Amino acid sequence: MKNLIYIPILLFVFSCCTEQQVVDQQAEADKLMEVSRQWADSKSTEEYLKYWADDAVFISSGQPTMRGKDEILKMLEGSVNIPGFKVDWEPLEAVVSKSGDLGYIIENLSVSVNDSLGNSITTYSKAVTIWKKQADGNWLNVVDINSEDPSITSLK
Amino acid sequence: MKNLIYIPILLFVFSCCTEQQVVDQQAEADKLMEVSRQWADSKSTEEYLKYWADDAVFISSGQPTMRGKDEILKMLEGSVNIPGFKVDWEPLEAVVSKSGDLGYIIENLSVSVNDSLGNSITTYSKAVTIWKKQADGNWLNVVDINSEDPSITSLK
Repeated sequence: MKNLIYIPILLFVFSCCTEQQVVDQQAEADKLMEVSRQWADSKSTEEYLKYWADDAVFISSGQPTMRGKDEILKMLEGSVNIPGFKVDWEPLEAVVSKSGDLGYIIENLSVSVNDSLGNSITTYSKAVTIWKKQADGNWLNVVDINSEDPSITSLK
Repeated sequence: MKNLIYIPILLFVFSCCTEQQVVDQQAEADKLMEVSRQWADSKSTEEYLKYWADDAVFISSGQPTMRGKDEILKMLEGSVNIPGFKVDWEPLEAVVSKSGDLGYIIENLSVSVNDSLGNSITTYSKAVTIWKKQADGNWLNVVDINSEDPSITSLK
């Protein structure tokens, strides 16, 4: 009977160990790449917006840094009014922390707009997106930064 | 005597728990900010270079993405030949994962060069740096990306 006191102790400490070991970093990184691809397939402003955390920071070449969903929404609403505006990206690599709560992706990004004659002009950039896993298990973007890279000629 | 078999088991699982709980995320984030400030105070190319991991990715506005210390070193050596070249930055905020192995910093960055008349011209950017803690406890930079932000007028 005396030995029974060890059972709750063992269960408690064993739960610590399993919690620590349960994160498959490669699987989480693959999942993050998939989330990035789903995000790129968004069909509406509302769909784009749901991948950002409420306090997300968005840093885009040559524009003032935006903070929070309200500022990001204004930017998205402004973008759809630019003739020929189209944005697309492809995740290249992802890394997730041992604890599985923080991760980042390096991406190739393309932004197209029409020139004054109606011809589409595409600019390529590298982008880095940082993600935090939420209590519900979903990844949300907390930092999104892009920087023009003239050496990129296609997304992949 | 029979109870003694629990001692090594308890020690093992207790070590798991303490390892998991030992990370003070705020203290690690503060340390990361301090590392960033020390980096900005580097006095030579060699000093700058020692903060990057061997496979670090460096993405700078309008330049092809660099990967690895060799490519970054070439960029550093080229920069010192630009008249009036001076780079400086100030970390604004840092976040570290629960496991304490991955973190990021958002920074204000200034790059100064001389124009053809010898007047210094400063361009401000936002930068995001991502860091991995090494086996020896030191943080090394794995991703460094900057993007021009015309709304910034000073580092702080």
